[in-house]
Amino acid sequence: MGTSTEITLRPIGYVKSKARSEGVDKKRISEIVIDETISPALEGVDAFSHIFVLYWMHQVPVKEKRKLKVSLGRGLTPRGAFASRTEKRPNPIGLTLVQLREIRENVVRVKGLDAVDGTPVLDIKPFESADFAKRATSPEWWPEIEL
Amino acid sequence: MGTSTEITLRPIGYVKSKARSEGVDKKRISEIVIDETISPALEGVDAFSHIFVLYWMHQVPVKEKRKLKVSLGRGLTPRGAFASRTEKRPNPIGLTLVQLREIRENVVRVKGLDAVDGTPVLDIKPFESADFAKRATSPEWWPEIEL
Repeated sequence: MGTSTEITLRPIGYVKSKARSEGVDKKRISEIVIDETISPALEGVDAFSHIFVLYWMHQVPVKEKRKLKVSLGRGLTPRGAFASRTEKRPNPIGLTLVQLREIRENVVRVKGLDAVDGTPVLDIKPFESADFAKRATSPEWWPEIEL
Repeated sequence: MGTSTEITLRPIGYVKSKARSEGVDKKRISEIVIDETISPALEGVDAFSHIFVLYWMHQVPVKEKRKLKVSLGRGLTPRGAFASRTEKRPNPIGLTLVQLREIRENVVRVKGLDAVDGTPVLDIKPFESADFAKRATSPEWWPEIEL
């Protein structure tokens, strides 16, 4: 096996949002419109308060994926893409923890999704305690980055 | 756009572990061997104590991906795949928060990764406070599931 092996995914749905460009807005309300053939997989999701949304940051140009190092902001040393949450990474999969507001048929309404209108969604997972590291530490430059 | 649009990914590396079958073991030490051409993207990752690992659960048979409903254990109502962390989901992307132990060149040593030997790895992301929902709630059946 090598990294030349290709993996093929199909979106489970798309983001419907007023956001046309990147930018974190934790108060933003978005909808995830799940493909109707897949919507039975949503049963029971409404029992969770928070879910992870995995999505494909489709607007990232190929050359950005190949950069590997990213600029983190003025005065900061560039770091590897895996040391940041930048969309400029080899596989631009976005991961955001969002608050679940409502599910109506195949439409999932969430708060805090950092994804632009039309973004393909790959997966939805319930948040659980194993996803939290109480004693997590990050480098001193982390709060300063401008991404 | 529709869910017929295909998305193609290439693994960034592979899991090296003694685990040959599924099963959560939070104490397990595994290695992620990153493709050498991609390893510059690791620079700075060692400054974080915890990282998310996104991987492709390649052993899931196609018919399991199409099931959409999953059995959660004896005496529990089956639920949608998106209401669980089962590997039997439309896009079997695994997401595990792990403790970072050491990085040596292109090898990332981690604790608590739920992935079998040979699993293709898709992405590595630093854990940050936005990934944690302090007041998250889950359904009463959640602690009982046998997955």
